[in-house]
Amino acid sequence: MELLAEARQETGLPIITEVLEPADVPLVARHADILQIGARNMQNFPLLKEVGKTGRPVMLKRGLAGTIDEWLHAAEYVMSAGNFRVILCERGIRTFETAVRNTLDLSAIPVVRRLSHLPIIADPSHGTGKWYLVKPMALASMAVGADGLLVEVHPSPDHALSDGPQSLNLENFSAMMDALRQLALPLGRVVAGHQREALPA
Amino acid sequence: MELLAEARQETGLPIITEVLEPADVPLVARHADILQIGARNMQNFPLLKEVGKTGRPVMLKRGLAGTIDEWLHAAEYVMSAGNFRVILCERGIRTFETAVRNTLDLSAIPVVRRLSHLPIIADPSHGTGKWYLVKPMALASMAVGADGLLVEVHPSPDHALSDGPQSLNLENFSAMMDALRQLALPLGRVVAGHQREALPA
Amino acid sequence: MELLAEARQETGLPIITEVLEPADVPLVARHADILQIGARNMQNFPLLKEVGKTGRPVMLKRGLAGTIDEWLHAAEYVMSAGNFRVILCERGIRTFETAVRNTLDLSAIPVVRRLSHLPIIADPSHGTGKWYLVKPMALASMAVGADGLLVEVHPSPDHALSDGPQSLNLENFSAMMDALRQLALPLGRVVAGHQREALPA
Amino acid sequence: MELLAEARQETGLPIITEVLEPADVPLVARHADILQIGARNMQNFPLLKEVGKTGRPVMLKRGLAGTIDEWLHAAEYVMSAGNFRVILCERGIRTFETAVRNTLDLSAIPVVRRLSHLPIIADPSHGTGKWYLVKPMALASMAVGADGLLVEVHPSPDHALSDGPQSLNLENFSAMMDALRQLALPLGRVVAGHQREALPA
Repeated sequence: MELLAEARQETGLPIITEVLEPADVPLVARHADILQIGARNMQNFPLLKEVGKTGRPVMLKRGLAGTIDEWLHAAEYVMSAGNFRVILCERGIRTFETAVRNTLDLSAIPVVRRLSHLPIIADPSHGTGKWYLVKPMALASMAVGADGLLVEVHPSPDHALSDGPQSLNLENFSAMMDALRQLALPLGRVVAGHQREALPA
Repeated sequence: MELLAEARQETGLPIITEVLEPADVPLVARHADILQIGARNMQNFPLLKEVGKTGRPVMLKRGLAGTIDEWLHAAEYVMSAGNFRVILCERGIRTFETAVRNTLDLSAIPVVRRLSHLPIIADPSHGTGKWYLVKPMALASMAVGADGLLVEVHPSPDHALSDGPQSLNLENFSAMMDALRQLALPLGRVVAGHQREALPA
Repeated sequence: MELLAEARQETGLPIITEVLEPADVPLVARHADILQIGARNMQNFPLLKEVGKTGRPVMLKRGLAGTIDEWLHAAEYVMSAGNFRVILCERGIRTFETAVRNTLDLSAIPVVRRLSHLPIIADPSHGTGKWYLVKPMALASMAVGADGLLVEVHPSPDHALSDGPQSLNLENFSAMMDALRQLALPLGRVVAGHQREALPA
Repeated sequence: MELLAEARQETGLPIITEVLEPADVPLVARHADILQIGARNMQNFPLLKEVGKTGRPVMLKRGLAGTIDEWLHAAEYVMSAGNFRVILCERGIRTFETAVRNTLDLSAIPVVRRLSHLPIIADPSHGTGKWYLVKPMALASMAVGADGLLVEVHPSPDHALSDGPQSLNLENFSAMMDALRQLALPLGRVVAGHQREALPA
């Protein structure tokens, strides 16, 4: 946690990080700007209640076999503890298809939009498992109405300790951001530039 | 078939229609501009071979449980009979999610793009089963790189004999087309206007 | 077909074989004792209607993504053409699990029993894809109430032209039959011996 | 926990109960004979490590979208903390089929048998969600080689606070046990009588 806090101070970037068990919530909430609940914990109810007691925004990833209905009920666990700042994140579901790591279910985004007021973002990195699918699926996510994106970036994906095959290098990330900015116009949307400026030139 | 031929002559619109069994192929190929192979027939090998013997373009829908690999192999059955004019159509796969009729797998489009030269279109009507999901998923399909769309339209969906809940009425179809035209610009693409002009004012 | 007819005459064994397209039905019905509809054709409606016009029993395999409801409706296509001699065959559905070729859904057997009068058998060979799972799943199929089994056997599975990995050799087939006979007793059932006697000693 | 402890003392029955978060493990381990990890926690790694530190046997349910491979790896988390007394429990996976609550994957039992020395039991109650499927699937579970069964029983399922539709009443439970005892003989197995004797006559 100290390293994350230091990184935040030095770069001015807000921090989002995963919290794995109820006992860790207070410490992580002190240092992180957003608490992430991973897909495997979508129905970890003690954890959901605990992050619901903090004032921190919570990003709730959809489980690998989580229906949209179950996902929205999981969000209720956080909100019923008093914390209404929940962000949903579609990150792919498990299907029979083996060409991708997970099947990114983009229809979940307009379905959730119809059922809930909660913001929803897409994670095309975990949602596909392959770097060359991230840019097209990021564009599709914006077109379908996602409020944001979660994208894995690494200066040298081949040397990443985890998830290298689904990480963009800086050049590909930059190309994706350019394409997103152009797509934003006809959709009447704006791409915030925070993250990109903070990256090394 | 006579009605379809008449409709084609009167409107000048090309006709695409489904062919269900090998024995019907010659008759249907005489009157239709494109032969459609439905999802339930993706691995109907005698039918695939038979449409492969015609000179007509073939639109091959993905099966409900068809992997991308099996789908491309099914296309080979058509091509190995000498007909290379195959169009693939992603129309949703069967998953555990019940909020939608099928789960439209948009990642299949860039995956196919990487593996094959064949054009690929998306069917957001069957792919979702709900009219209010058609426009956002159509926009996402264009953004992810689909070469075309298959969309169900009915002047009065509530009175449609089949698939009413997933059909756009004329007004919603028009709104979708406008949004697609605007999205086409930053993607460097053009939306052909043929179909729309032919609809009653 | 001539070879099948010859094999039937020589061995006295009844013949079951798959029919793939409507035009072939009359010829196949002349020589086969049972007509098999494969999983990929569960919803091939012209084919279902055609076999419904014959007097031959029809074995209808469940599709890879076929719900039990759709499967029973497919059987109705055969029966509505006048042929009530339909045998259902559970042969595994497609799931996310990759340790097996398909997931044999044994709960389908008592579910069908509750909804229909049709006999239902299990195919643990296609249903698992691995020879060493065939015997335990055959025993489970009998215990759950299957009316019969469809098992692939080959004198030398390593040299089989297809489906070798899921085929039993004669020794393993014999061991499976012995175990089934013993299990039949407490279940109040009888294992018919026809097939086995016909095999070379 | 006090009620469970009291129930154990009064009946002499051993207790198995679910533990939901790491902080609760010491308390639950003091009173329960077996610690249950529920399907939604199959990959709750902090919880797996914590139960691994106790001397209590752990029953690890398979996750709704858990592959057999992931399940065995989850068991390793418990064992790597020093506790080798892990029991696996197949309780159904999530598929497209809606006729059942979950699809009980009985092939998982012989697959696990081949890959691991761990005992494995089946839960036909959660695995089907319908009381009338419990008996046939229990028989199938024994026939396929399960080391035990987890079955929900309630004196009056219609008044159960949870899971009534999948619970056996005492009469049906008794009938299932009789059928299991008869099936055990040809399989060379013994059905332990502990649980039944403890039920009210």
